[in-house]
Amino acid sequence: MKLPAKVSIVEVGPRDGLQNEAKILTSAEKIRLIDALAAAGLNRIEASSFVSPKWIPQMADSAELIGALKVPAGCRISALVPNDKGYDSAKAAGLKEIALFMSATESHNKKNINKSTKEALDTLAELAKRARADQLFIRCYLSVVFLCPYEGKTDPLKVEELVKELFEIGIDELSLGDTIGGATPSDVWRMIERLERSCAKEKLALHFHDTRGTALANVLAGLEAGITTYDASIGGMGGCPYAPGAAGNLATEDLVYMLDGMGIESGVNLEKLLDAGELAQELLGHKLTGRYLQACLASRAKSLKKKEMEACS
Amino acid sequence: MKLPAKVSIVEVGPRDGLQNEAKILTSAEKIRLIDALAAAGLNRIEASSFVSPKWIPQMADSAELIGALKVPAGCRISALVPNDKGYDSAKAAGLKEIALFMSATESHNKKNINKSTKEALDTLAELAKRARADQLFIRCYLSVVFLCPYEGKTDPLKVEELVKELFEIGIDELSLGDTIGGATPSDVWRMIERLERSCAKEKLALHFHDTRGTALANVLAGLEAGITTYDASIGGMGGCPYAPGAAGNLATEDLVYMLDGMGIESGVNLEKLLDAGELAQELLGHKLTGRYLQACLASRAKSLKKKEMEACS
Repeated sequence: MKLPAKVSIVEVGPRDGLQNEAKILTSAEKIRLIDALAAAGLNRIEASSFVSPKWIPQMADSAELIGALKVPAGCRISALVPNDKGYDSAKAAGLKEIALFMSATESHNKKNINKSTKEALDTLAELAKRARADQLFIRCYLSVVFLCPYEGKTDPLKVEELVKELFEIGIDELSLGDTIGGATPSDVWRMIERLERSCAKEKLALHFHDTRGTALANVLAGLEAGITTYDASIGGMGGCPYAPGAAGNLATEDLVYMLDGMGIESGVNLEKLLDAGELAQELLGHKLTGRYLQACLASRAKSLKKKEMEACS
Repeated sequence: MKLPAKVSIVEVGPRDGLQNEAKILTSAEKIRLIDALAAAGLNRIEASSFVSPKWIPQMADSAELIGALKVPAGCRISALVPNDKGYDSAKAAGLKEIALFMSATESHNKKNINKSTKEALDTLAELAKRARADQLFIRCYLSVVFLCPYEGKTDPLKVEELVKELFEIGIDELSLGDTIGGATPSDVWRMIERLERSCAKEKLALHFHDTRGTALANVLAGLEAGITTYDASIGGMGGCPYAPGAAGNLATEDLVYMLDGMGIESGVNLEKLLDAGELAQELLGHKLTGRYLQACLASRAKSLKKKEMEACS
């Protein structure tokens, strides 16, 4: 089995994770978390979102937060940008990277951002134009590429067309989102096989949710298909907006555990990542859904003998 | 990617799952659960264990339970058998299939059954001899084949030798257990590549735990390696004996969801399986760890709109 020797992880917990959490953290708390993530070796962190505080109160401090961050050299910080106003703020905050977003289906664009797919694409094109002029790195999220909560199976042809248009617009990287966590490995193979005809695999990232337990199997499928960038959220933070209490984002620790076991380099230290996960739980005041985190914290709590601890770590 | 068109699932919830649950169910409750599992189309169910009630009080009713079961024709029922006494009872109960067990490491055999590996193998050989004479189907579990909580990485050469000896003894099927849920897909590929030199892949089953979220990725690796039998436990029932509160057995619904999505036939109806999972939670009085189960039950509870329900189911 030919697999990449090295992958890049984009930590989306501080944005995609926190925006689905009820408890609003202070900027100081978010900084502690981001510092812990960077200390674990994560070198791409999506730190916040420049959306209206009316939409997502958790992200109201985006400008101050970005301004106050002091991450190690080599750690790339980005934030989500929905519109011109958000772009202005992101630029003013000194970001070198932004993330734009839209959905692959008409209904999800309508429900999520109250725009048609055409309108979403136009907005995105204008923002990308500004970002290119400003020489910012442009990540883009395309949501519900496999399954849409409103339309069922997403039309792969539609996804292919949108992906082409997005790269024509000038984005640097596209994160393909299994937003409701419904994909299985066959879906991933088929999608990448389709998309690699028209775009470079190095520019594609995969963003899985573990809602039905398939996230790491889908990562394996992605690795086999040659994709080298994966999104993940510390502790699986964020849950599933469609099903409160259920798992959402793929947990970063679960991803790193599997990559480590397979000898695939990610640059992330699993023990330090566990500390970041423990901190995230402490800050949020509840358990997160990540499997590795829960197993290891339970082992720690039970004060297992040294050998057993080692087997766990 | 060449994958099997069809796989067989061995439901181990009523034995491997329940034996790790604190609440002791009545025989009537267990029968309800087993009936629900059979109704979902599961045609291999490990229903109980003929161990001493002193070891595992949950299994004290094994003889009455097996005697009272009325599963559909074609549904194979088996039970775990640790010794001659258990074998006598299993045979008296009219079972056509039994499951024997031992571990791949010296320490795990010692801690788990207070026998050396040699002694465990001798006991197993005697039981297998009786079962062959009685024309029973003999499944065997080999625990900790990848990672041992006491010894760390298990020596693959040792596993290979044991597997050869077990088939020489005359077992019909061997279930390779990732008992503490530490394996990653590379481990699975390597193990199967090693074992297929000396035994038929059709006689191998894989038994994964989802302790670190890797269970379905490991199933995918197993499918790619040509293995067609997988163990799973309804709702992920049973947890992890080494880490209370953490996930244990691979949840049957998660497995079936992935297989369905990949077009791999299992004969199991996912909606009915969900009913069995809901029943298991109701009987045990607590939430189980299965991802699909929690996502779907949360959606049901939230009374999502029809379209969203469909996206979940």
